[in-house]
Amino acid sequence: MPFQLLEAHINKHLNITKEEFEVYKRHFTPLKIAKKDFLLEQGEICKVEAFVTKGSFRLYTTDANGKEHVLYFAVKDWWMADIDSFTNSIPSSITIQAMENSEVLMITRKQKDLLYKELPIVEKQFRIMSQKGYVALQRRLIQSHSMTAQDRYLNFTTKYPQIAQKLTNIQLASYLGISHEFLSKIRNKITQLNR
Amino acid sequence: MPFQLLEAHINKHLNITKEEFEVYKRHFTPLKIAKKDFLLEQGEICKVEAFVTKGSFRLYTTDANGKEHVLYFAVKDWWMADIDSFTNSIPSSITIQAMENSEVLMITRKQKDLLYKELPIVEKQFRIMSQKGYVALQRRLIQSHSMTAQDRYLNFTTKYPQIAQKLTNIQLASYLGISHEFLSKIRNKITQLNR
Repeated sequence: MPFQLLEAHINKHLNITKEEFEVYKRHFTPLKIAKKDFLLEQGEICKVEAFVTKGSFRLYTTDANGKEHVLYFAVKDWWMADIDSFTNSIPSSITIQAMENSEVLMITRKQKDLLYKELPIVEKQFRIMSQKGYVALQRRLIQSHSMTAQDRYLNFTTKYPQIAQKLTNIQLASYLGISHEFLSKIRNKITQLNR
Repeated sequence: MPFQLLEAHINKHLNITKEEFEVYKRHFTPLKIAKKDFLLEQGEICKVEAFVTKGSFRLYTTDANGKEHVLYFAVKDWWMADIDSFTNSIPSSITIQAMENSEVLMITRKQKDLLYKELPIVEKQFRIMSQKGYVALQRRLIQSHSMTAQDRYLNFTTKYPQIAQKLTNIQLASYLGISHEFLSKIRNKITQLNR
């Protein structure tokens, strides 16, 4: 079942044969992660890239004052890693924590290098995926510069309602870069406008 | 000369033959851009991806109040585009302006698709490049959350002294997300500390 999800995901970008997918899947290991457990902790080297097959994760960075800042959330059908740490073997700047009981398929750096050698067509998949990740980050950076907190809130909850409903006020406020008191004000204002 | 720069750049990531590079380079067109001219204006569809062979560029977004926010600067040996707009044919969120008389090699979407078909090895180059772009944006996002303006200033000027010296106070302040008055205060403070 998790591997079927991965196969369907890959075939959005590539047309790979059943035989090729057999080669592909051998490089991945399934892992269950309990709610609140960590796939990666800030400061560690990120050893795996993970494809989410169940549940949801929060990716955040903790600043020198101990304050957490959410970079993004990952749900089923998403990839996650600290690519900087994974690629360059430097300590990770982010923590990846399960928000509920979750499952992933993991691939290590060594296995990924092997995979590229065995199936060069996979370069295309990760080229497209990296571009999508880049675009998502660019949108987030532009919005953080140019949109009000209220517009960012509406944008996020409209675009990702299934993620938004899983979040606590504090988690969502941390993603939007505002205090949870300010988030409550925004929510009250919107409720009043919609009456 | 510009094509030699491109060839050297590609060979950082791939080993392509002289013959392959002949195929590669046919897809690119050289363009000179005068100081203050635009390669792309916000709202247009981004038609080309460009490799900088001379000079420097400022990539910024303008918010609803007309305020400009610099996303990044591009210099020789860097790629630039609004990948979101280029890939998805949607209006660009960014403007690309030459900070001095500059030169690029451009490739259109159609030519890029052709290039991938003719030389599948190029997928690898753009996979690696997209990952690097992703990592740079992730670092920027994390720093904007977790570092003080003074630390971001020191980090940028230490890492990219050759870019920093080309910038006006206003351009650098816009990149750091602070007012130019605040940037002046930071500079004064650092000067006093170094005395």
